[in-house]
Amino acid sequence: MTQAMHFSTADGRRLVGRVEGESVVAAFDAPAEGFVPADDAWRAVRDANGERFAIADVHVHAPVLPRKILAIGLNYMGHVEETNLAKPEVPVVFAKWSSSVTGPFDPIVIPHEETRTDYEGEIGVVISKRAYRVSVEDAWDHVGGITALNDVSGRRAQLETPMRQFTVGKSFDTFTPVGPVITSVDAITDRDRIAVRTVVSGEQMQSSTSDHLIFSIPEIIEYLSRGITLEPGDLIATGTPGGVGDERKPPRYLVPGDVVRVEVEGVGAIENPVEAER
Amino acid sequence: MTQAMHFSTADGRRLVGRVEGESVVAAFDAPAEGFVPADDAWRAVRDANGERFAIADVHVHAPVLPRKILAIGLNYMGHVEETNLAKPEVPVVFAKWSSSVTGPFDPIVIPHEETRTDYEGEIGVVISKRAYRVSVEDAWDHVGGITALNDVSGRRAQLETPMRQFTVGKSFDTFTPVGPVITSVDAITDRDRIAVRTVVSGEQMQSSTSDHLIFSIPEIIEYLSRGITLEPGDLIATGTPGGVGDERKPPRYLVPGDVVRVEVEGVGAIENPVEAER
Repeated sequence: MTQAMHFSTADGRRLVGRVEGESVVAAFDAPAEGFVPADDAWRAVRDANGERFAIADVHVHAPVLPRKILAIGLNYMGHVEETNLAKPEVPVVFAKWSSSVTGPFDPIVIPHEETRTDYEGEIGVVISKRAYRVSVEDAWDHVGGITALNDVSGRRAQLETPMRQFTVGKSFDTFTPVGPVITSVDAITDRDRIAVRTVVSGEQMQSSTSDHLIFSIPEIIEYLSRGITLEPGDLIATGTPGGVGDERKPPRYLVPGDVVRVEVEGVGAIENPVEAER
Repeated sequence: MTQAMHFSTADGRRLVGRVEGESVVAAFDAPAEGFVPADDAWRAVRDANGERFAIADVHVHAPVLPRKILAIGLNYMGHVEETNLAKPEVPVVFAKWSSSVTGPFDPIVIPHEETRTDYEGEIGVVISKRAYRVSVEDAWDHVGGITALNDVSGRRAQLETPMRQFTVGKSFDTFTPVGPVITSVDAITDRDRIAVRTVVSGEQMQSSTSDHLIFSIPEIIEYLSRGITLEPGDLIATGTPGGVGDERKPPRYLVPGDVVRVEVEGVGAIENPVEAER
């Protein structure tokens, strides 16, 4: 199991390292974009033999600051059914701006205007090398690893935007917690059946596995890379299982004081406290 | 009039410089993201006294490679009316991925699958400094300059995406030509009335001025910066006037061999030949 972590030390160094149990071994100084999981970067992480830190003593950042976040909607039947929308014939693709990315344990801050903040636990896929017109068969060769993410969604803004464009409601600052690590694909037990689970303040809200994806990870990559170049470090949010707060009766929106945990098999968990904007 | 240009020389140096008539005076080596029009970068461009190149002898790049492109739809009544859609009560915000950015004179390449490629000439606004909850009154203080852009739109993909999310059809590689320069706001005759015009293969297709925007540039910045931090170098596509190809009778789509010119007052023109993907 190789897991890469992007973190800051107590004395202010920002590093990339390899996770070993409860500690992380420094590999190299982090570039501005964090850990872009290309082959040479993975090699450096695997060979890391620098200073060792207790993870409890460092500040863990989002593993990568992606140039683009490509997000898929309505990609589990459970979520399609709860929304009463049609099963999509092609992927429902939308964008999240990367200024929404925050660390795996940092607060989700609800902006003043948002009244219906929702969680969406998801498997994140990070691109390792340029992908253009990549087939389903070759798609995994372009994946540098898997991470956990919360596609936090401001439903008020998402529905206020005319023509229902999702991006604003999905892109408030802190609305994309990512991490805590990128796990290499070879370390995933079954890359076609990865478990994902969301727990809000102790209550399980979502649980599924990626074999239930309507469009699989390779199919998403094939579809997106027809006309759009995927670049190293780009992050794909693969879609959320049924159980979102907005579709519950009554709805279960995130409120200050909540803690949202998203677990992805082989990756671990991100866990973000919810706060109101001051 | 201060205009900053991002270009490569015949011997392979990538530079930022100040335009003087038909030539450009080198200011500094270009960072990866091109010219981010913050105050210190503008100062360096104004003080430029490096090597002088004929613009005809350099390759002009998009002035900036933005982290995010925030695009506004349906922002001129002429375009609202031709689409038979309702006048928006709040801005129709969508995203273009920045991997779609191309140079001001580089080809627009239509991917195999796209059958309805359209032009949208627009005024581009480049952010100079961090903007969060910025008022209409203060908004211009966060603008580093104006540019011209073509929000090229693959209507087939735009309409194929379920829930009509725009981003895929708007984000094919080369579908955001930008440039040829960033013009400082103080050099714009009337920043509240900027002319924009689109000419396809010699025929004028769109012509308006920014006083006809439904949501003005300051209003867009105020709206977006409620909850979303605008960062230096971010690019706002302010919306397109009436006259797009998809709404003409019969439609006028871009085809290989076309040349699309977008002129913005105070900025000049981008002019992109259209090609089919090989």
